[in-house]
Amino acid sequence: MEQDTICALATPNGSGAIAIIRVSGKDSLEITDKIFKSGRNDSLKAAEGYSVRYGTIFNEEGVVDQVLITVFHSPASYTGEDSVEISCHCSPFIIKEILSLLVKNGARMALAGEFTQRAFLNGKMDLAQAEAVADLIASETASAHRVAISQMRGGFSSELSAMRANLLEIVALMELELDFSEEEVEFADRTHLRSLLDETLAHIGELISGFKLGNVIKNGVPVAIAGATNTGKSTLLNAILGEERAIVSPIHGTTRDYIEDTVNIDGTLFRFIDTAGIRTTHETLETIGIERTFEKIREASVVLLMLDVTRPDNFDDSINTLTLKIDPSQQQVIILINKCDLILDLPKSGKGLIDPDDIDPILGKYVENVSEYATSAGLSPIAIIPISAGKHLGLDSIKKTLHSICSVGATNSNSVLVTNLRHFEALQNAHSALTRVAEGLESTLPTDLLTQDLREALHHLGTITGAITTDEVLGEIFSRFCIGK
Amino acid sequence: MEQDTICALATPNGSGAIAIIRVSGKDSLEITDKIFKSGRNDSLKAAEGYSVRYGTIFNEEGVVDQVLITVFHSPASYTGEDSVEISCHCSPFIIKEILSLLVKNGARMALAGEFTQRAFLNGKMDLAQAEAVADLIASETASAHRVAISQMRGGFSSELSAMRANLLEIVALMELELDFSEEEVEFADRTHLRSLLDETLAHIGELISGFKLGNVIKNGVPVAIAGATNTGKSTLLNAILGEERAIVSPIHGTTRDYIEDTVNIDGTLFRFIDTAGIRTTHETLETIGIERTFEKIREASVVLLMLDVTRPDNFDDSINTLTLKIDPSQQQVIILINKCDLILDLPKSGKGLIDPDDIDPILGKYVENVSEYATSAGLSPIAIIPISAGKHLGLDSIKKTLHSICSVGATNSNSVLVTNLRHFEALQNAHSALTRVAEGLESTLPTDLLTQDLREALHHLGTITGAITTDEVLGEIFSRFCIGK
Repeated sequence: MEQDTICALATPNGSGAIAIIRVSGKDSLEITDKIFKSGRNDSLKAAEGYSVRYGTIFNEEGVVDQVLITVFHSPASYTGEDSVEISCHCSPFIIKEILSLLVKNGARMALAGEFTQRAFLNGKMDLAQAEAVADLIASETASAHRVAISQMRGGFSSELSAMRANLLEIVALMELELDFSEEEVEFADRTHLRSLLDETLAHIGELISGFKLGNVIKNGVPVAIAGATNTGKSTLLNAILGEERAIVSPIHGTTRDYIEDTVNIDGTLFRFIDTAGIRTTHETLETIGIERTFEKIREASVVLLMLDVTRPDNFDDSINTLTLKIDPSQQQVIILINKCDLILDLPKSGKGLIDPDDIDPILGKYVENVSEYATSAGLSPIAIIPISAGKHLGLDSIKKTLHSICSVGATNSNSVLVTNLRHFEALQNAHSALTRVAEGLESTLPTDLLTQDLREALHHLGTITGAITTDEVLGEIFSRFCIGK
Repeated sequence: MEQDTICALATPNGSGAIAIIRVSGKDSLEITDKIFKSGRNDSLKAAEGYSVRYGTIFNEEGVVDQVLITVFHSPASYTGEDSVEISCHCSPFIIKEILSLLVKNGARMALAGEFTQRAFLNGKMDLAQAEAVADLIASETASAHRVAISQMRGGFSSELSAMRANLLEIVALMELELDFSEEEVEFADRTHLRSLLDETLAHIGELISGFKLGNVIKNGVPVAIAGATNTGKSTLLNAILGEERAIVSPIHGTTRDYIEDTVNIDGTLFRFIDTAGIRTTHETLETIGIERTFEKIREASVVLLMLDVTRPDNFDDSINTLTLKIDPSQQQVIILINKCDLILDLPKSGKGLIDPDDIDPILGKYVENVSEYATSAGLSPIAIIPISAGKHLGLDSIKKTLHSICSVGATNSNSVLVTNLRHFEALQNAHSALTRVAEGLESTLPTDLLTQDLREALHHLGTITGAITTDEVLGEIFSRFCIGK
């Protein structure tokens, strides 16, 4: 596939020493040659692949910068095309000037993800690998990194192609039968087909059930902070975020009436969701907000229920309300008794508050009460922790408890984990189609109906690696990349 | 000079496709080899200089990333040492992991500017060139870029070394005379010395007087916005900044009770300074603020005097106050009549306001009044412009006027311009010392006193390129660089 020549800044904007400008396409060497002078007489076309030249980029007025230029010849490059990487000084002025010189000489600015899209189109990587590149760049924890790199290196892709190859063989034989349908031959051994189907269904089932873990690794364990109004939910979120500010990143892209932010706790990513305060109301708008809160609570893996120690008469009601909304088989609850600094004369260290062996007797009484209310409501909280969000006391206990129940740091690095929603949906579709084939075999459905479902399963598996794809799907995937990737 | 091995991220922090990690020092190839596997059997030491290898960085748990590694052998590298550039995916997790692997294997994190400092210590560039690298990265306009690149390429340095070489020859001959002082020989031709001195003094004088322009190119033309309180000074600053938001950058590093920001107008950098409103007061604190305002006004090349069209009785007083504070030979004044939208029913385009041939008669009267007050105060403003800062009307007239009186876009690219305060001071010191030598020659001062002053001049010139330097000076210079440079 011969394409036009594209260019873009590949390194982040900002201040640094070096910036890299990428150029790729059939004329990339010629275009760069027009604006570059080195001490040599030969052109960049004559340069060996994977070699670097030192020289100057110049415009009509003189030298723009002294740069290093790395030359890649097709097909041995990231995109598979002739490519150049220009390593220049990291000045916004110089970057702008070099890009505009490249454009003046026949290149055009690359679209988001266009380099990787070309790598896909030129067969340098399949779609699942290309998507893993984006995940790799975004990964914040060791486990997310491990999942992304195994996908980028093709672990997932090779499993998928093995499955597809098996199914393709069967479907080809069955279609051959159709051509000889009057002779009633059976090229495709039904017993073999049956066992292959079971095997494939089991494998896809595993991949599907791994999605929940994969998604948690990539996007964080969802933790909802719930409770009545004014119990200090937002204060707690800020306290947790504030302490980990250096490794916090907001989740973009969703319009929301709730606040979400991720925190890396000892290698596991947690996604905290601050919800609207729960209270009985007849106001329509607030009812909608509270309904959305319950939705967020149902989606969370862990719910932190906030109680206000100065309002003990609300304990029972809060616990009962929450108990009605959660699914104990799917969700875990930690109860936090907040504002403890208001009823105790706490030393700065919070001693007497956070040490369970040395808990203040007044607080001990509150913890006991809460425990009794929970038992009678049928709720089994993982822990009941007295804290002071405002004074940053007890936060460590919360983090330790969260880490102990949700750690994904030790995920086995050899198993393939699906993290991408698109892949998950394709696997689910393939699973349904193959289930129909399995059922059809039982009820001795005609071969042509079986092959139709098999083809459908193959199609869905094919969309994951991009063996089958459309421009629309490609556009959708690569537009989410950054420019220069 | 053999030094330990340092490493750092050389590209900016942030999101992008590629990041570059630099490693430099005697063990850089060996250390990188320990964490890198390519398809080849030989080590990175065997790789040709300026060649690139593709492979994986791995830690104990497996693959960290797939990377490109560029190898540089001493002395053909930026630092002059064996060096490696690792081009990895731009993920904070991967960058951190690779840096920590390098450190585990014997490298250490580089200090700010340490790569460039090593380039200087290894004779790859002199100090003036090294400082120009930082200026180059920071340059925001074509002219600032041109000045920095000419310095980085050694234009300034070669002029300085020519001067030093001449002076050194003379001083050597004079010192030889001292050894033979009893014989009253004259190795150094005094007429030649005299003409050489005049030549050098003239040259240094030129460089010194170029500093003002050089400084303006680098830091921006200082434009003070002055006027009585509540005339809309800050609104104007915001309006100008807002329009050019994409190319605005705040000036860091100075504690200030006034607001400063630079704007690139048609290739010339302007540094706008919003000052405290001027009014008569007996409050000590406010008096200090106003005194500082006058200081800022005196330092500016251009003063924008803001008048409020709804308070015409203040015109005379404002103009008189400013006239007392400025130096008409050094500073230019533009008078702005603000808030015109409040007295006119202005169309959105501002027509009738900004077109001088079609000015509204009411405004015309105000402009006339202001012109008369200015004349009687002895002030010759470059222009009197009716505007509305709040409605963004008339801003173009201000920018055009500023550009017409202060454009440095057309600076001759061949002349060397001093932009660095350190260089400027060294040149001034050298100038004084050489002036003493010239005077000493007139009054036939003894040779040993002359050589002493000549040596001093040589010393000062030498500090610019780093021919003469101290650790303290080096530390001071390179600590201002970013890490990774």
